[in-house]
Amino acid sequence: MYRIDLNSDLGESFGRYTLGLDDQIIPLVSSANIACGQHAGDPMVMRDTVRMAAEADIAIGAHPGYPDLQGFGRRDMNLSPDEAYSYMLYQIGALQAFCSAQGVRLAHVKPHGQLYNHAAIDPELAAALAQAVCDVDPNLVLVGLANSALVDEGRKAGLVVAEEFFTDRNYTDEGRLVGRNDPAALIRDEMEAIERVKHAIRDGAILSVTGKLIDLHPDTICVHGDNAQALAFVSRIRQSLEEDGIAIKPVGRP
Amino acid sequence: MYRIDLNSDLGESFGRYTLGLDDQIIPLVSSANIACGQHAGDPMVMRDTVRMAAEADIAIGAHPGYPDLQGFGRRDMNLSPDEAYSYMLYQIGALQAFCSAQGVRLAHVKPHGQLYNHAAIDPELAAALAQAVCDVDPNLVLVGLANSALVDEGRKAGLVVAEEFFTDRNYTDEGRLVGRNDPAALIRDEMEAIERVKHAIRDGAILSVTGKLIDLHPDTICVHGDNAQALAFVSRIRQSLEEDGIAIKPVGRP
Amino acid sequence: MYRIDLNSDLGESFGRYTLGLDDQIIPLVSSANIACGQHAGDPMVMRDTVRMAAEADIAIGAHPGYPDLQGFGRRDMNLSPDEAYSYMLYQIGALQAFCSAQGVRLAHVKPHGQLYNHAAIDPELAAALAQAVCDVDPNLVLVGLANSALVDEGRKAGLVVAEEFFTDRNYTDEGRLVGRNDPAALIRDEMEAIERVKHAIRDGAILSVTGKLIDLHPDTICVHGDNAQALAFVSRIRQSLEEDGIAIKPVGRP
Amino acid sequence: MYRIDLNSDLGESFGRYTLGLDDQIIPLVSSANIACGQHAGDPMVMRDTVRMAAEADIAIGAHPGYPDLQGFGRRDMNLSPDEAYSYMLYQIGALQAFCSAQGVRLAHVKPHGQLYNHAAIDPELAAALAQAVCDVDPNLVLVGLANSALVDEGRKAGLVVAEEFFTDRNYTDEGRLVGRNDPAALIRDEMEAIERVKHAIRDGAILSVTGKLIDLHPDTICVHGDNAQALAFVSRIRQSLEEDGIAIKPVGRP
Repeated sequence: MYRIDLNSDLGESFGRYTLGLDDQIIPLVSSANIACGQHAGDPMVMRDTVRMAAEADIAIGAHPGYPDLQGFGRRDMNLSPDEAYSYMLYQIGALQAFCSAQGVRLAHVKPHGQLYNHAAIDPELAAALAQAVCDVDPNLVLVGLANSALVDEGRKAGLVVAEEFFTDRNYTDEGRLVGRNDPAALIRDEMEAIERVKHAIRDGAILSVTGKLIDLHPDTICVHGDNAQALAFVSRIRQSLEEDGIAIKPVGRP
Repeated sequence: MYRIDLNSDLGESFGRYTLGLDDQIIPLVSSANIACGQHAGDPMVMRDTVRMAAEADIAIGAHPGYPDLQGFGRRDMNLSPDEAYSYMLYQIGALQAFCSAQGVRLAHVKPHGQLYNHAAIDPELAAALAQAVCDVDPNLVLVGLANSALVDEGRKAGLVVAEEFFTDRNYTDEGRLVGRNDPAALIRDEMEAIERVKHAIRDGAILSVTGKLIDLHPDTICVHGDNAQALAFVSRIRQSLEEDGIAIKPVGRP
Repeated sequence: MYRIDLNSDLGESFGRYTLGLDDQIIPLVSSANIACGQHAGDPMVMRDTVRMAAEADIAIGAHPGYPDLQGFGRRDMNLSPDEAYSYMLYQIGALQAFCSAQGVRLAHVKPHGQLYNHAAIDPELAAALAQAVCDVDPNLVLVGLANSALVDEGRKAGLVVAEEFFTDRNYTDEGRLVGRNDPAALIRDEMEAIERVKHAIRDGAILSVTGKLIDLHPDTICVHGDNAQALAFVSRIRQSLEEDGIAIKPVGRP
Repeated sequence: MYRIDLNSDLGESFGRYTLGLDDQIIPLVSSANIACGQHAGDPMVMRDTVRMAAEADIAIGAHPGYPDLQGFGRRDMNLSPDEAYSYMLYQIGALQAFCSAQGVRLAHVKPHGQLYNHAAIDPELAAALAQAVCDVDPNLVLVGLANSALVDEGRKAGLVVAEEFFTDRNYTDEGRLVGRNDPAALIRDEMEAIERVKHAIRDGAILSVTGKLIDLHPDTICVHGDNAQALAFVSRIRQSLEEDGIAIKPVGRP
């Protein structure tokens, strides 16, 4: 039977600042990636978000990022692999404590923003991130861009990896994302986007931007809960997948 | 047989800034309290300090503080118990990950600076800190000021507590530290200080500043490694205790 | 002719986080207090907010706060007067540079949150804040709670001060705000609130919570632009004041 | 008559962390570049350092850097020109307030670390920094690497610029610094280094690493006060310059 995970980046509020409709997206997804207080999130937000995700019985993951709240982890900081390794340990550990306090297990790790993007193309950085995940707990699932250096290095390190697919993006013949400054970067038609997802899940392949069939085996899909329109799309894709008999489940759960 | 723990606050460097002679104090103590990146320390410093302490086989503890690097955790921030609880989880978890990566177990938690001082006299705050320690791992030892609200609340929460004694400070008839602005606050004679420690260890009592015999059962003594003079004192007290047959051991180890 | 200033706290967004409807409140007020990057705001937000306020030709003020973004400046940090003085200089200077870049003059300074509240009752802290304002530019207006230590110390330092009045709060017989945990703290009826403002402006007096007539000479009123309801109230109070011939003008402008 | 400025990066301490022998280097230099609280320094340190520099009557400059205390401004953050412009205004303004409080004038601006290095080779970033300096005060001197994009863009913006020379570095035929990973990067002989400086001052030229004569017109030399050896070198170079009749003076002073 076919299966897929729906994941969303949550717990991105900070102090007096609220971001995301976490309580509304949680019932729609199977995995929560929770910010760890360096690019977003704070200890109170982490506690509340872990509690909500635990109550919904979805998989809880750490979402570590660059230590740059002002840039929301979206400015590349050119960390050395050693620095990146240490920041990963710090953030994964911090989130783990909130899981312990709720009596649940941390299930996965998905790097955020530019750390994720940089690790997708830099094997040395990717290896440092994978090693950090291993060193905290080798049973953690590492989530990375499908066909990226991060999932390659995760596998080399002996981790279970989850290849992440973006429903609204076109891919090059090499299986990479078409850059955002390219007019062909985005797939704007929702029905087309949903059909692409289903084909990728069933066949392990999609059509590239040039029309070539390329390998792509999605384990998880990233969805957003920032506004009502985004939430409606998540409901729609979820329903459409289930109608076709594709189970929505976290990676690694039976 | 009599025993005592010698603990020191370590890992307080940050980025380009170096503080403390950690490599020289580690061989002299039985417990390391390692800063967790909020009032001092950073992920790279945490990694290095945990590694050094693990190699020396001393007990490793988390040393969480107020999130105020500029004030070094010494300015009271008037956190609500809920906030303090969450900051504790965050910092303890972060340090735990570095322990996992070294294959060692986190052994204790000692709050830092004003968080420590405030929890010594505020039962509600103390209870929140004790709960945080419990919620991460009920086998952790909680270190607090001897005869303080923090050790009381730790015991109520079911934790093993370690009562901390300051060798160079006078105590009131109620077993509290004489305030630093009182001329009688400090014991300046090193030999007298060492004799006081030994009596406290053997008899569970010391003379207060007014000459009254008061209960005080020290489990651990805080020592400093900031400069050559401080290190010399640690060598001296360590040697003197061992000559009198008092074993230097972490709390909770056989 | 009677006059009053309407001021609002603006520029409180930070990085990816948006707070306040600044563009909608600016046309309704005569003074903007702009956050300076320590409790809220960042350099890009400061630039944009100063530009908007300059274009609207309203008075621009610095709104310095405790250096605690996570607590939004609402947790008292127990700074020494020397520390508070230095944080004030830092923040006022930072905002001044954005004014220089827009070719406008910084007009006033209003401390934020707990710094404002603490300075209202602590003459030593208040004197440090007043000195900081003087030392940057003795022509700056210092805004403080009406009848507070801050306005007293501002006057002693030779500054023009603006006494701030809260339309929705009751006052004690001593002219202090009734504490928020007292059920009588708030005035919930909008018409009553507006009438109180007018009487205070015309007569320099209001009825205290016990019904006693007390001195209160408001120079400026704080209004909020967080949501549609708040904005509607600002429109209403503005219109009502103007209908009664009370001019809406920044303190210190002809 | 020949002249040169000796500048040093000061005020890099932070909270409990001390860095640099500021009180010992100040009497030896003619210009102080003072950290502005983003990559190093804090408001109390800024106040003390400005006061010391003002008392010594040396030129006071702002030393703005990337907002990354943990990386000491040495990790490139890939700011957009707009972001860099805003961070510059923020930091220059903050330091200016401490100058106002001391009754002295801010004289120059020298970007720090990777901001300096990046602006040396990126005309768009350099133009943004130059614009920020202009917009705060067009009379400020902009200090940049000799023969760099930063001094070019400063001149285009109408600023007086100061070309900075590094006494211990070799230069390429194009007048750029030989990279630190090249074995020929450093000039290790102190006498040779001092002779190079003098020739550059007198002739506006030095020998490149390949032995070619290249244009280089140093206005200012960066010296360090981190340790006793560094201080001794500053004394030596200062004395040697003065013996040869080269005046030690800030750029822009008569």
